[in-house]
Amino acid sequence: MNGLEHLDRITVALGKLPGIGRRSAERMAYRLAGDPDGVMRELVQALQEAQENVRLCNLCGSITTVTELPCRLCTHPSRDGLMVCVVQDPSDIVAIERTGAYKGRYHALMGIISPMHGEGPGEIRLQALLKRLDTEGFQEVIMALGMDAESEATASYIAEVLRPRKLRITHLATGIPVGSGIGYSDTLTLARAMKGRQNL
Amino acid sequence: MNGLEHLDRITVALGKLPGIGRRSAERMAYRLAGDPDGVMRELVQALQEAQENVRLCNLCGSITTVTELPCRLCTHPSRDGLMVCVVQDPSDIVAIERTGAYKGRYHALMGIISPMHGEGPGEIRLQALLKRLDTEGFQEVIMALGMDAESEATASYIAEVLRPRKLRITHLATGIPVGSGIGYSDTLTLARAMKGRQNL
Repeated sequence: MNGLEHLDRITVALGKLPGIGRRSAERMAYRLAGDPDGVMRELVQALQEAQENVRLCNLCGSITTVTELPCRLCTHPSRDGLMVCVVQDPSDIVAIERTGAYKGRYHALMGIISPMHGEGPGEIRLQALLKRLDTEGFQEVIMALGMDAESEATASYIAEVLRPRKLRITHLATGIPVGSGIGYSDTLTLARAMKGRQNL
Repeated sequence: MNGLEHLDRITVALGKLPGIGRRSAERMAYRLAGDPDGVMRELVQALQEAQENVRLCNLCGSITTVTELPCRLCTHPSRDGLMVCVVQDPSDIVAIERTGAYKGRYHALMGIISPMHGEGPGEIRLQALLKRLDTEGFQEVIMALGMDAESEATASYIAEVLRPRKLRITHLATGIPVGSGIGYSDTLTLARAMKGRQNL
């Protein structure tokens, strides 16, 4: 392999990451090749150590390490074992944990149902969720998926599947974001905020 | 280190690459952690092999391998040893090679002079260029830098430094891009194209 073929392999791998097109992958590859003792070494080390140590929790799917399987979120006794929050990705768990507003368990679907992209109900971790509902004794399932069409359809689908079970099924409130003005909200958000209005 | 700290190290390293902000580095790190046997493995392998084999040519700065120093562009006898094309980065060499319109030598500055970013004439490979001009017997120096303000200022600065030497100093033509219409060109490009008009 010549130098450019090596760069090309890096470009191809980087191009498989979300939001990275051919051109920006190429620029990254050149930057790495141009600084072998700097950012290249730093990235290789970080990746290797993560490869050895980082795992996804076998129960909830959150980011954890080989020494903590299942993860602390699943095992810590101080957390509420009666509710499970269903999210799309491990990163959503991090975002919700950062709020400090939730102390129950989690379940990451690792995707959403997206017929346009060939992702059916079998492609997400729905069976794993049903199995957990059978064994872990949750009483409430909180759907914390996005507010786009596919995420909402996924939430509705899962709610239908769960309907026969004696569970409270909730979803996050839709409304005007904190710090935003009425005039900046789109019509649909405003309509939902009106519908979901609460007592003052 | 817990799982998130590992991801954070990957995020920091990726964030040092051109065009990658904190948020997209984070998304990439999550994707890598979520697919340890897929894209993670592929990227680690590609990087490790590049780290072992890829080098920048000690003369021109182009991408080459440990077994070809100086690179083929510098040593191949069929190339014109009387002209040297000065570019900003190794990737520019690849772009010019792709045209097949140039068969001389190259010299990558590894940057441009940018007082705004604290990059003076000492930060680019200008001394290395002068040394090559002393020893390699070039008769023409082609400035193939960008058409933005900093690149043009860098080209002017280098031209001034080279002025005392008996050399032909040229730069790439500015004008209307192939395939583009008159109406799509900005005023400055159009003015330069007019000024640089050629006999039909």
